[in-house]
Amino acid sequence: MSENKIKPRTLAGFVELLPKDQILFNDMYDKIRASYEKFGFAPLDTPILEYSEVLLAKAGGETEKQIYRFNKGDTDISMRFDLTVPLAKYVAMHQGELAFPFRRYQIGKVFRGERTQKGRFREFYQCDIDVIGDETLPLMTDAEIPAIIYETFTSLGFSDFTIRINNRKVLNGFFESLELTEKAADVLRVIDKIDKIGRDAVKEELIKLEMEAIVADKILEFIEIKGATDEVIEALTNLNIDKGAFVTGVNELKEVVKGIRGFGVPDSNFRIDLTIARGLDYYTGTVYETILNEYPSMGSVCSGGRYDNLAEFYTNKKLPGVGISIGLSRLFYKLQEAGIIEASKATTADVMILPMNEDLTYALNTAKVLREANINTEVNYSKKSVKSMMNYANRIKVPYVIIIGEDEEKENKVTIKNMTTGEQTTTNINDVVKMLK
Amino acid sequence: MSENKIKPRTLAGFVELLPKDQILFNDMYDKIRASYEKFGFAPLDTPILEYSEVLLAKAGGETEKQIYRFNKGDTDISMRFDLTVPLAKYVAMHQGELAFPFRRYQIGKVFRGERTQKGRFREFYQCDIDVIGDETLPLMTDAEIPAIIYETFTSLGFSDFTIRINNRKVLNGFFESLELTEKAADVLRVIDKIDKIGRDAVKEELIKLEMEAIVADKILEFIEIKGATDEVIEALTNLNIDKGAFVTGVNELKEVVKGIRGFGVPDSNFRIDLTIARGLDYYTGTVYETILNEYPSMGSVCSGGRYDNLAEFYTNKKLPGVGISIGLSRLFYKLQEAGIIEASKATTADVMILPMNEDLTYALNTAKVLREANINTEVNYSKKSVKSMMNYANRIKVPYVIIIGEDEEKENKVTIKNMTTGEQTTTNINDVVKMLK
Repeated sequence: MSENKIKPRTLAGFVELLPKDQILFNDMYDKIRASYEKFGFAPLDTPILEYSEVLLAKAGGETEKQIYRFNKGDTDISMRFDLTVPLAKYVAMHQGELAFPFRRYQIGKVFRGERTQKGRFREFYQCDIDVIGDETLPLMTDAEIPAIIYETFTSLGFSDFTIRINNRKVLNGFFESLELTEKAADVLRVIDKIDKIGRDAVKEELIKLEMEAIVADKILEFIEIKGATDEVIEALTNLNIDKGAFVTGVNELKEVVKGIRGFGVPDSNFRIDLTIARGLDYYTGTVYETILNEYPSMGSVCSGGRYDNLAEFYTNKKLPGVGISIGLSRLFYKLQEAGIIEASKATTADVMILPMNEDLTYALNTAKVLREANINTEVNYSKKSVKSMMNYANRIKVPYVIIIGEDEEKENKVTIKNMTTGEQTTTNINDVVKMLK
Repeated sequence: MSENKIKPRTLAGFVELLPKDQILFNDMYDKIRASYEKFGFAPLDTPILEYSEVLLAKAGGETEKQIYRFNKGDTDISMRFDLTVPLAKYVAMHQGELAFPFRRYQIGKVFRGERTQKGRFREFYQCDIDVIGDETLPLMTDAEIPAIIYETFTSLGFSDFTIRINNRKVLNGFFESLELTEKAADVLRVIDKIDKIGRDAVKEELIKLEMEAIVADKILEFIEIKGATDEVIEALTNLNIDKGAFVTGVNELKEVVKGIRGFGVPDSNFRIDLTIARGLDYYTGTVYETILNEYPSMGSVCSGGRYDNLAEFYTNKKLPGVGISIGLSRLFYKLQEAGIIEASKATTADVMILPMNEDLTYALNTAKVLREANINTEVNYSKKSVKSMMNYANRIKVPYVIIIGEDEEKENKVTIKNMTTGEQTTTNINDVVKMLK
């Protein structure tokens, strides 16, 4: 490379995929989008950049340190770090123009200047759905969310996954019964770690929060209630805790479970897990995590929950909601790393036409017929040898190749070759269209 | 609004659409993407952020002033301002891993801190396709591009548009014949303005470039060669200019025209326009602009051309290419402003189910059947009055509503209402699926 060239390179933590991987990624993107739309969610596409004052209204600590923030002229600008804050801003701004419940999905890039490490990205896709109510939002919405998760992961080709469900009111009411309300946030933070650090370490940390060992044991017994969904609900009921939040929470769980079944989600794909609290402060009711059972080390691949107030930093209007997020870039990376998904085609073409004749008229007509039948078609204009054109077709892994030589043109036929099986047949274009559809 | 709320607002020049408009926008996005894929182009998704040194290798002047550029830690970062520079970087970086010709499309946001004005955005979508060759690229590719433009704008619902084609070699060879080679760039800049400032002003400006009036007249006569495509080619041939570039250019134009016809693009949708030069310096052969004939004031809605060397700032490898770009955000804005496109639905749902019964089982089953048939379905869980639910359905303009009451449930039927015509019928769910497909 000569001295005066600039070395082409990409920022650390930023990804650009090769065509075959991008096609695989887009396939997942499309399936998630289609699943969200199947439930009638409307698309939203907020700007990448926002006023820092608006975007950071709530942020603090770690999040704020990771923000890409800069001045352009006199304007203090930040890049979005999630899709929830922009949603809150959007709903607060446009509340008069929106119909509630407002059901929106947004799939887009967000930016966090995290320390770079394997599988952690600074620019990554989130795929969010939220349903926002005006003052109230039916509990049935909490049951719809797992149905959407089920649809989404089923359409992505998974069957062995579990949507774990809990309710923050159950947790809070339970803590209240132990007179731990003031420490509830701390306790939640500690029990959230049980999968990572284990029972003993959790107990130790709980005791450090200044509670008696017997209380810590009660907490552990509680979050270790296991079993089939109805057994867990029965066990919770049998605790006979008469705190309002607890009773409400258990009733909500019951209703939500009934709804999830009504939506047709099999019992094998969801269960109550009392250890789930979700770290974020703003969840107030149902919470969700989703585990691919064969790959538990991936952690939750789809999480979220119910919150009382989406946009309290911008408006006095009460906007309760429930939503989930899929971290697509991370999920894609993990699935590829684990060999669960594998790229094949490096082209969107279903067919590549290899014209052998000097005159391309017949080849171009053939391409036109195929495209009119919605078959994606590339024509190879290279006028190179058959071998060289076949090499190219093989490299981009186009599924079918159509060879057009003098004989084919004379007989008004084409020769089509299945590039996977090697099978080859000469027939007319209408048969080819039928075969490829 | 209480004192401590932060006013939700969006940066000037940045757009977020209401659901109905976003759906309309996405519809255009999807059609453009599908058109690009119909020709077998592979998707690419480069990062929004790049090293400033890499992104600004070529930039200068106006462009550089508009860049969103900042430091994060020690890193000098810029936001992409087009999709061509990231493509050049990508191809230079990954040349060993790509198969050539590399046919890629990219649809994504780019950022320019322009002075804000109506219809000019600081964050906007570009929809690009480029075909990049390794050392060489067949001329047939230049003919394929108008076929893709034709497919794209036809799929967007347009019929009365013209793809204007020219060839820079024809222009350059012509200037050479007038011994104006050194001034060619200046002359091109001047004649590019003919639509805006008119013939006389162009002549004046040409004379200011220090040429005799008779030479300026020759230039004007040349660029005013009009007529049917074949007449223009004949007129060019009849000029008997023996400069190499001119002869090559005319031959290329001839070949490209033949190819365009081979692709099935009607003569009514393209023509040679010798006034088109495209401002950018790097076009070297065929150039394109696309005009919606009923809305000429919109200017070109799709432009591009052939260039000799995509990535000369990063690599010594010669990478000739040809490509086009659609400025989707601007096009969308202009089409809406002109009333050519109009939003309808504010939901992706085809159907909304209004359950009248307390128990939702039957309603949820109905929703499941519809979704399994790929019919996007929302269930209204509000338990409000029929009137209130109908109001909501009307506001988001869902095309069909399904009402499920006791009678319907008893008879295993549903009542479906066409929200446009008001027609209502009670039938079984299989008929509904058939009707909606």
